[in-house]
Amino acid sequence: MDRLLASLDDAPIVDKDGYEYLVHPISNGVPMLDPALLREVVIEVMQTADLNVDKIVAPEAMGIHLATAVSLQTDIPLVVIRKREYGLEGEVSLHQETGYSESEMYINDVEPGDRVVIIDDMLSTGGTLASICTALDDIGADISDIVVVMRKVGPSALDDTEFDATSLIDITVEDGEVVVH
Amino acid sequence: MDRLLASLDDAPIVDKDGYEYLVHPISNGVPMLDPALLREVVIEVMQTADLNVDKIVAPEAMGIHLATAVSLQTDIPLVVIRKREYGLEGEVSLHQETGYSESEMYINDVEPGDRVVIIDDMLSTGGTLASICTALDDIGADISDIVVVMRKVGPSALDDTEFDATSLIDITVEDGEVVVH
Repeated sequence: MDRLLASLDDAPIVDKDGYEYLVHPISNGVPMLDPALLREVVIEVMQTADLNVDKIVAPEAMGIHLATAVSLQTDIPLVVIRKREYGLEGEVSLHQETGYSESEMYINDVEPGDRVVIIDDMLSTGGTLASICTALDDIGADISDIVVVMRKVGPSALDDTEFDATSLIDITVEDGEVVVH
Repeated sequence: MDRLLASLDDAPIVDKDGYEYLVHPISNGVPMLDPALLREVVIEVMQTADLNVDKIVAPEAMGIHLATAVSLQTDIPLVVIRKREYGLEGEVSLHQETGYSESEMYINDVEPGDRVVIIDDMLSTGGTLASICTALDDIGADISDIVVVMRKVGPSALDDTEFDATSLIDITVEDGEVVVH
């Protein structure tokens, strides 16, 4: 995880309504994402995740690059949870709240009995992941695993669910610096 | 391109305010994206694009999977054009209009003199790509190539610029069917 740890030192931290927000290639696609960093992270995700699944599920936008790389390596199909409504049969909408935004998201093409792994960049407030897990559970999908690259240490909306996420690294962002736990 | 062509027959078409909208794994991540289809498309993108570049630039959300795969294969870094503002130094905002939505997008980490290739899923009204090209040109970047998987035949906002996109296939969507040209 040398590249991931080193990348945290270089990533800008900006103020978002009084909230210290880490701008990182893995979680934002900005600054530019070095493919060597992505490879390192994706190998670690694959070693961590239970990939005995039918589908990889990833929320738009910054779960897509991670899930794409895992899908190409493992030959497991990928479904993107979109912020766009299609009105397709079986579409399930969910309400997403993060520390700085809220919106609707839409799950398509996950069927009852599907075994899925959720891959995402960051667990922060956990609002998005908690909503996704609850919606997938309501659909009747079996969530084998939830893997995120980074988790911000602290209470998360996932705590109030039966679901747990595994993170590659745990961090806090304070006083303009990233601390790795 | 057998898989891509076959996939067009299976992709749902939905009504979006009177507009026939194709819901396709490559352009929507819905229905689920078969990695074999993605591989086929990405190989074709790599054979088509001028990849003698410093950076791959892809707009959120459905340029990300394509650009990620090309980045991992070619070792060229990837920058995502986001719908989220960071306020970083050098950030450039652009106004994006498509057939059914409009919003702001933000370019970061593209410098004057950077040679870039733009990769995206679909050229339809061309509003997004025209805005991106103009903004990259204003930054002083050199756009080596613009490659999209699918182009909807018809006038496009790119026609009013000096930029041209190359598409893997040209289509129209009419009367609930996809026609390949």
